[in-house]
Amino acid sequence: MRKVILSAALTLDGYIARRDGSVDFLQAANHSDPDLLRSMTAFFGTIDTAVMGRKTFDAALEMTGGTYDGHGLATYVMSRSLPPGEREGVTFTDLTPRDLVATLRAYPGKDIFLMGGGETAREFLKDDLVDDLRLGIVPVLLGDGLPLFPAGFPQRDFQLVECRHFANGAAALRYERRR
Amino acid sequence: MRKVILSAALTLDGYIARRDGSVDFLQAANHSDPDLLRSMTAFFGTIDTAVMGRKTFDAALEMTGGTYDGHGLATYVMSRSLPPGEREGVTFTDLTPRDLVATLRAYPGKDIFLMGGGETAREFLKDDLVDDLRLGIVPVLLGDGLPLFPAGFPQRDFQLVECRHFANGAAALRYERRR
Repeated sequence: MRKVILSAALTLDGYIARRDGSVDFLQAANHSDPDLLRSMTAFFGTIDTAVMGRKTFDAALEMTGGTYDGHGLATYVMSRSLPPGEREGVTFTDLTPRDLVATLRAYPGKDIFLMGGGETAREFLKDDLVDDLRLGIVPVLLGDGLPLFPAGFPQRDFQLVECRHFANGAAALRYERRR
Repeated sequence: MRKVILSAALTLDGYIARRDGSVDFLQAANHSDPDLLRSMTAFFGTIDTAVMGRKTFDAALEMTGGTYDGHGLATYVMSRSLPPGEREGVTFTDLTPRDLVATLRAYPGKDIFLMGGGETAREFLKDDLVDDLRLGIVPVLLGDGLPLFPAGFPQRDFQLVECRHFANGAAALRYERRR
């Protein structure tokens, strides 16, 4: 079955961005480390679909100057207010997480990359739809920001399957859901 | 100089306890793993002093049935409201974090174990008094709880110095402050 993999870089205090959405603190996590590049390439080889919340899409658009290209992935942007349909290189959808995942799983394919943000992650965790976690822990305490795991979902147990680190000081932790 | 080492076990979503203070989710992190035991013994060999907030002391008292023994460490409990002085095997102090650390550093000794909780950690981080982090990441998302790093302190950068894992699935990350 196609797995849903929540993958994100987060700070030691659990933030994926500053309050204003900026992610300058990720700059240390650059791609010049061949190990990191290899790891990311391997991950991208296992997925063909990306899912994100509307706010994360807006942030991605802003970071790329309005030309987010989806990295060759079929990309779904979840929004209850925007009209569903394909535009800007992505598919907007107003399906619930459960229905979206069921729809995607009705077709053969690779795994599904859940890109966040926190509010979307929480909705997926509420419905126990997250199979794997891939967390890149950036060695900084921000003191405030947008959390990857905002409170408000039931306990979910995981199993550590990989623990490594990269030259940039990021720790990479990979987990599988233990149901 | 005697370092201040903030060390705690926390969940993947950054909690050191449930909202009600219970830490049942730590049971998987038992001490039957010889590697983990060795690591904890090595850490305890580097410290001779513990500092904690009053709420954490109350929780420790409750967990031990009122007989918290301080593990042989000189133990300071920070409280602005309780009268300062030695009792119950610990020293209550109303010093600020900065003054307490300066007082402790005026004497030779081993490193100082900052045991938390989150509110105390925040006060120490505000004053940039945390030199090292030793974090044990427990493989569970709680969905709510008491955070180790509640918001409200300036950005603090760290450097990863150790990244390992134990048989119980906990990841152990060790960091030094990068000033």
